[in-house]
Amino acid sequence: MNHLLPRALNDVIDELGQLPGVGARTAERYAYYLLRAKPTIANKLAGSLERLHTGVKSCPVTFALIDSSMDISPLYSDTSRDKTTIAVVEEPLDIIAIERTGQYQGTYHVLGGAISPIDGVGPEQLHIAELIDRIQNDGVQELIIATNASVEGESTALFLQRHIKEAKVDIKMSRLARGIPVGVDLEYADQITLGHALEGRKEL
Amino acid sequence: MNHLLPRALNDVIDELGQLPGVGARTAERYAYYLLRAKPTIANKLAGSLERLHTGVKSCPVTFALIDSSMDISPLYSDTSRDKTTIAVVEEPLDIIAIERTGQYQGTYHVLGGAISPIDGVGPEQLHIAELIDRIQNDGVQELIIATNASVEGESTALFLQRHIKEAKVDIKMSRLARGIPVGVDLEYADQITLGHALEGRKEL
Repeated sequence: MNHLLPRALNDVIDELGQLPGVGARTAERYAYYLLRAKPTIANKLAGSLERLHTGVKSCPVTFALIDSSMDISPLYSDTSRDKTTIAVVEEPLDIIAIERTGQYQGTYHVLGGAISPIDGVGPEQLHIAELIDRIQNDGVQELIIATNASVEGESTALFLQRHIKEAKVDIKMSRLARGIPVGVDLEYADQITLGHALEGRKEL
Repeated sequence: MNHLLPRALNDVIDELGQLPGVGARTAERYAYYLLRAKPTIANKLAGSLERLHTGVKSCPVTFALIDSSMDISPLYSDTSRDKTTIAVVEEPLDIIAIERTGQYQGTYHVLGGAISPIDGVGPEQLHIAELIDRIQNDGVQELIIATNASVEGESTALFLQRHIKEAKVDIKMSRLARGIPVGVDLEYADQITLGHALEGRKEL
């Protein structure tokens, strides 16, 4: 709160400052931009923000984000998608990243996070029971575990793998390959990534 | 526009993506944060954005930003501020930067930009005539030209200096010192800054 600025401007700065990674200076820059721009820009954003929570819901099967007016994610209901393959991701936006590759025709399952004892997130907070149900109901044959390459993502992948084996569900499971990202020089790759790249080397 | 995301989420992403320096990925991160957070956060921001343009106006004397309910900037009307000294700045937020130093007791005058032929901004688009009026009405004795250290800021400073001399107004004029910023090593200072630092060296 800066008493030198008009209250209406200050409010916008304070609230934009709550966005992830946005400090006071950045929030000031955003707010001042909106103030100098045509009022329609701020007003359109205001309107969209008001509709954000009412216009979005979770798909009851895949937990992807869908329009409130929809029953089920189009990435699941679409008959051209292969329901016997599921890519398991942490967050809904991860789906977009995989869809951008244009190389995947299966369906998705959003866990809603990763196991993280520090943040109080255990397996029971994730949509794992629903995943087991889907595997049985849809006759799933392959599970691609596409959690993040973080400690939490790795633990979650390991937990899923064990949990599904214990449930005596016999399906193919895989994880996304670890290796050197495209366009990155060897000398800049960290040792763990390089270790994965060696381990997962492809025969020519 | 991403057809894989709910429309309400997409709208927020598109509109946040118009903020300066915010790309698609950053806008996605902001929007997803707002979606996962309590609805009150998005709704409060929406409300503040709606009040932004109606709640803020320009001070008719200093052109600082003030509450719509105010007549004049408190940094001008406050009797403890020295009206015979004016710091001339390009934008309203520059005032905050100077106030943060706690070292200035004069008043301000916002030009509303800097002379920039490329952007079609000439002296007549800036609040220069109003500055000349103030100098005469308030018996101003010192003008601190605090425009930015950019090409446009320098041209504007030069223009102001000449224009005021031509107007036969006899006042002290100064510019903010150029030099090495606090905490920066000599070897990292660019040659122009270092040149200014040499030129403006202080005797001990």
